[in-house]
Amino acid sequence: MTASSVEFEARLREVGAQRYHDKHPFHHLLHDGKCSPDQVRAWVINRFYYQASIPIKDAAFMSRVEDPKLRRAWRSRIEDHDGHGENEGGIERWLRLADAVGVDRGFVASKAGVLPATKFAVDAYVRFVRDKTMLEAVAASLTELFAPKIHAARIEGLLAHYDFADDRSLSYFKNRLKEAPKDVAFGLSWVLEHANTAEKQDAAVAALTFKTDVLWAQLDALYAAYVTPARIPPGAWQPDTFLASRCAKAS
Amino acid sequence: MTASSVEFEARLREVGAQRYHDKHPFHHLLHDGKCSPDQVRAWVINRFYYQASIPIKDAAFMSRVEDPKLRRAWRSRIEDHDGHGENEGGIERWLRLADAVGVDRGFVASKAGVLPATKFAVDAYVRFVRDKTMLEAVAASLTELFAPKIHAARIEGLLAHYDFADDRSLSYFKNRLKEAPKDVAFGLSWVLEHANTAEKQDAAVAALTFKTDVLWAQLDALYAAYVTPARIPPGAWQPDTFLASRCAKAS
Repeated sequence: MTASSVEFEARLREVGAQRYHDKHPFHHLLHDGKCSPDQVRAWVINRFYYQASIPIKDAAFMSRVEDPKLRRAWRSRIEDHDGHGENEGGIERWLRLADAVGVDRGFVASKAGVLPATKFAVDAYVRFVRDKTMLEAVAASLTELFAPKIHAARIEGLLAHYDFADDRSLSYFKNRLKEAPKDVAFGLSWVLEHANTAEKQDAAVAALTFKTDVLWAQLDALYAAYVTPARIPPGAWQPDTFLASRCAKAS
Repeated sequence: MTASSVEFEARLREVGAQRYHDKHPFHHLLHDGKCSPDQVRAWVINRFYYQASIPIKDAAFMSRVEDPKLRRAWRSRIEDHDGHGENEGGIERWLRLADAVGVDRGFVASKAGVLPATKFAVDAYVRFVRDKTMLEAVAASLTELFAPKIHAARIEGLLAHYDFADDRSLSYFKNRLKEAPKDVAFGLSWVLEHANTAEKQDAAVAALTFKTDVLWAQLDALYAAYVTPARIPPGAWQPDTFLASRCAKAS
């Protein structure tokens, strides 16, 4: 039976309450000031892969949209990440965070030390958006419903606990607090309007659940590789190697 | 500079020496008899997703091959997994292993409790074979070069340490010992013949490296979720839930 909009929205929000990555132990460590400098760097390096893939994902979505109005509404997401006029964009702001935590921005931008599991998860999201129905693609983006709370907690936690944190280094998160609400208001109303059968509502909930898996798996990989017990897989970023190469550069 | 066949084959084998998943701590636990029954079940459940995806991967490969001879040579891989005449096939043999370790074969076949990170890694492999050059697709299959050793070690370790292990439950691995050599002989000679420039040799090595990442990431996810400290992500198989549902069924 098709649920009312109110019931359906509550179902979507329940996915976040159960599975959003604000509940992952890595975020607790990060926001409570319990990450070592190398653990923060590992997070910055891996999360960059996600950031860098978001506009690719949005372009994949737009490549399937025939309605110019919908494409135009969606285009601002790419501008938010890649920049537009005076706005340098979220990817550049993320690299500024890399500078602040003491990891080479060229290394981060190269994506060389990213965990394979991070790539597998993020690439799965890009392909999901390319291959599934448009409704599922938009529904997967609705993790933004839950993002403002985690961004606010992150800004507060990083400012309180880490020397690198200031307005400049955290500008990515501050900007997302401004940008995300317009995206999610649009996405949510689009999903509420288009999921007009029980089957489509189920598909939208499954897509949002899939997206929470994508986010959770990234932190799982990070935790397994760099927290405890540290088991860094072959080829992924090694703190010592990085420090050695940095020292070599400075000499 | 293009390396000789001998040098190039040595480079491919070095990828296995450095990165094949026989070196992963989960396999050491498994083969040394140190896995709990639930840890063995988690391995059987998750590895099934890989097994079940292999013939899909091989069909994706064949869908790109224009030469009937190459398709015919490749087809036996699908037969090995899906069955042919009297041969029940590797997927069915894997489900027999599921029976033996005490996990419901219907649950395993449903893929319901598979870790998201397992799916992301395996799906990345299927898409790699679908999207990359044919040379890269064949080169990625060459982890089979390293498989006979791990299958032999597994048969010996499981027989020595676990009650469930016997000829019947381990028939999957025994059959692979017979099947894999013909596949890898064909794949290796094909790669050696077609990687006729330095650039193609590099691409083949990168493809094989990618495949070792796919295998390693699966065990990393398993270890992180079910070994220590156990952090099972939302929606993945939970030992207690499984036992509860089993008890409910038996009553």
